[in-house]
Amino acid sequence: MHPNDPALRSFITVDPASDFPIQNLPYGVFSTSGTSPRVGVAIGDAVLDLAAIEAEGLLDLGGAKGIFAQPSINAFMALGPKVWSATRERISTLLRHDHAELRDNAALRQRALLPRKDVTLHLPLTVAGFTDFYSSKEHATNVGVMFRGKDNALQPNWLHMPIGYNGRASTVVVSGTKVRRPRGQLKPPSVDVPSFGPCKRLDFELEMGVVVGQSSTMGDMLTEAQAEESIFGFVLLNDWSARDIQQWEYVPLGPFLAKGFATTISPWIVTREALEPFRVQGPAQDPAPLPYLQQRGANNYDMQLDVDLRTSGTAKPARIASTNFRYMYWSSVQQLVHHASNGCMMSIGDLLGSGTISGPEKEQRGSLLEISWNGSEPFELPDGSKRSFLEDGDSLAIRGWCQGKGYRVGFGECEGTIAAAE
Amino acid sequence: MHPNDPALRSFITVDPASDFPIQNLPYGVFSTSGTSPRVGVAIGDAVLDLAAIEAEGLLDLGGAKGIFAQPSINAFMALGPKVWSATRERISTLLRHDHAELRDNAALRQRALLPRKDVTLHLPLTVAGFTDFYSSKEHATNVGVMFRGKDNALQPNWLHMPIGYNGRASTVVVSGTKVRRPRGQLKPPSVDVPSFGPCKRLDFELEMGVVVGQSSTMGDMLTEAQAEESIFGFVLLNDWSARDIQQWEYVPLGPFLAKGFATTISPWIVTREALEPFRVQGPAQDPAPLPYLQQRGANNYDMQLDVDLRTSGTAKPARIASTNFRYMYWSSVQQLVHHASNGCMMSIGDLLGSGTISGPEKEQRGSLLEISWNGSEPFELPDGSKRSFLEDGDSLAIRGWCQGKGYRVGFGECEGTIAAAE
Repeated sequence: MHPNDPALRSFITVDPASDFPIQNLPYGVFSTSGTSPRVGVAIGDAVLDLAAIEAEGLLDLGGAKGIFAQPSINAFMALGPKVWSATRERISTLLRHDHAELRDNAALRQRALLPRKDVTLHLPLTVAGFTDFYSSKEHATNVGVMFRGKDNALQPNWLHMPIGYNGRASTVVVSGTKVRRPRGQLKPPSVDVPSFGPCKRLDFELEMGVVVGQSSTMGDMLTEAQAEESIFGFVLLNDWSARDIQQWEYVPLGPFLAKGFATTISPWIVTREALEPFRVQGPAQDPAPLPYLQQRGANNYDMQLDVDLRTSGTAKPARIASTNFRYMYWSSVQQLVHHASNGCMMSIGDLLGSGTISGPEKEQRGSLLEISWNGSEPFELPDGSKRSFLEDGDSLAIRGWCQGKGYRVGFGECEGTIAAAE
Repeated sequence: MHPNDPALRSFITVDPASDFPIQNLPYGVFSTSGTSPRVGVAIGDAVLDLAAIEAEGLLDLGGAKGIFAQPSINAFMALGPKVWSATRERISTLLRHDHAELRDNAALRQRALLPRKDVTLHLPLTVAGFTDFYSSKEHATNVGVMFRGKDNALQPNWLHMPIGYNGRASTVVVSGTKVRRPRGQLKPPSVDVPSFGPCKRLDFELEMGVVVGQSSTMGDMLTEAQAEESIFGFVLLNDWSARDIQQWEYVPLGPFLAKGFATTISPWIVTREALEPFRVQGPAQDPAPLPYLQQRGANNYDMQLDVDLRTSGTAKPARIASTNFRYMYWSSVQQLVHHASNGCMMSIGDLLGSGTISGPEKEQRGSLLEISWNGSEPFELPDGSKRSFLEDGDSLAIRGWCQGKGYRVGFGECEGTIAAAE
């Protein structure tokens, strides 16, 4: 059976509401007390230690050794799409309810299947480069209306290419890492000279991240098929943003310190293959993209995305946004094709942020900038407090999943709590 | 004697016009036919193979092993400023005319001193992140006058901070690497819809690059002294730019594909220490920078910078620009302090471009955009051809050096030749 077959069952019991059924098998990097970080796969409430499975001789990685006994997925990605596919199929087989190899090896199960609650999750990849796009039409329109008015909401280039910019790779962190409120130069329109201090308009951005698993050749472009094939998987991504720093610094070279202080990703990389059943056609593109950007495939995904905000005073989070990845105007494949169209070499471990994912409805807005309409419409939380932007102690969590028949393929959580500026 | 002492002499004869006297000792990565890339130091017309010197037991690296038998300088940089200093002093001693250890060991000299003309030079560092600044007031003013007129030449933020943006690290290449003309979306103002094709306004940008040799802690700022100490050295840098791609793509998130196709650096990293004697005060900064950006030190350098253009039809290059690094308004130290001011973690191997270095005079303009005044003033070359922007086959070479008494501390060449778009 294909690893995506809805009928597959594991010998490990998986709740239908779990993000990690046997149809998912996302990769992460974990450690337990006193052991080194290594690669594992999430299954139900457990983690399968792939370093242990590899060391047991149960995986055929074409002669490569020690691939999973490393603190990042990059060495595995370097083996290429055929190995990705074969390995996923093999892991699926090893976890099947009707396959004895691991199921009936009590010693190995003891060693290689760890309760997920007992492991520490690390950044799953070594981020080579981080690029952030701006590809939701609803988000770009909301921002445009706010700052330039309805008639000039979208910039002239927006409908012709996936607008993007280079981000900072060194500060990509895994879910659960505290995010310190950045300091920076602030100059609200009401004052004449800037001052330096803690950001007062700290925001999140709900995004997906593409993990690039294959490098390209400097000077060469990528076709749609090549771009598609070089995508290893996806993560949830929160592109934390300091709106006040951004407003003062970004002309004419774009956002810099307003973004580079932290970017949080989910610990689990869901493979492109696991998301195959959830492909959908994206929005119609009008005008038609230039030939190099045209796509034949249905390159969007039907993926539910929720954002919860929990204040330091309360246990219960409030749902502040709920949208879907399918709304993206420019697909991840188009972003990657565009990125390489000038001959830019793509590297194993490149991370491409989708850009804030908003939808057509008000509750589908993927940033506080949009939700509070640039601070002009503060909203109330269950504890009675009001928010326009994030306060110290606030915890922001993104969740995402695709719903199958009787199972869901999900990402777990992408969470960060705001620590006060020092 | 201090390794910067003008009286020092090597047992290797060095021409007074050479970039590589014993007072310099820049680091690079080289290989010879059939051998692996490793770290060396340039001295006169030779390269000292530091992997061989280390293997011979002549260097004390605090217990670290195989530091120079690697294809990048990063492992050495990780050892920190005290080791940088001690190692430079030791190499200086080994190369002195009055020190016998290497001078009188014919077998070692044979093995470890190679004619520079016989080695292949590689990218000297693994570039962790590439950030590009925009810190020459003359350059920013020229560009501003061109596009916004005299009265609004400088953006309101420019005098308050070193404006910068994240660049693309994967396409930083070493001098001598061919640069393929990028393709991209072009939409001159005269047409309504963009087309995709080879860039027609290909430019260079004369810059210096700072090589960061120490990492910082995420969430922390750097003081002026900490920033200073984390600078390992400098390279020449050409930030190739596709002006037409840039003009269409850059609003609102800044330059992206217009820059990321290639950035060329010189093969030799001149250490900060070797440049100490050439420190000068930069231009007065008015208004005074905010306290976090204020500097007490003379953080500019008196460094001559020349740009030569050679067309494919001629042997003799034409000097098209001649300026000095001392004109920079924001110093490299200020750039680094600003970069980390939001808590952004700096990494070993970060490369910071200074931004185009222009000067107050017309012949001191560091880009063709300025030299040809956006194409409105084409200039004539010795072969009778005219140029506004770069043509296929053009070779662009940057050279830079500081003049001491009887010697110069230089960088060699930062060269790239334009290959046609495919």
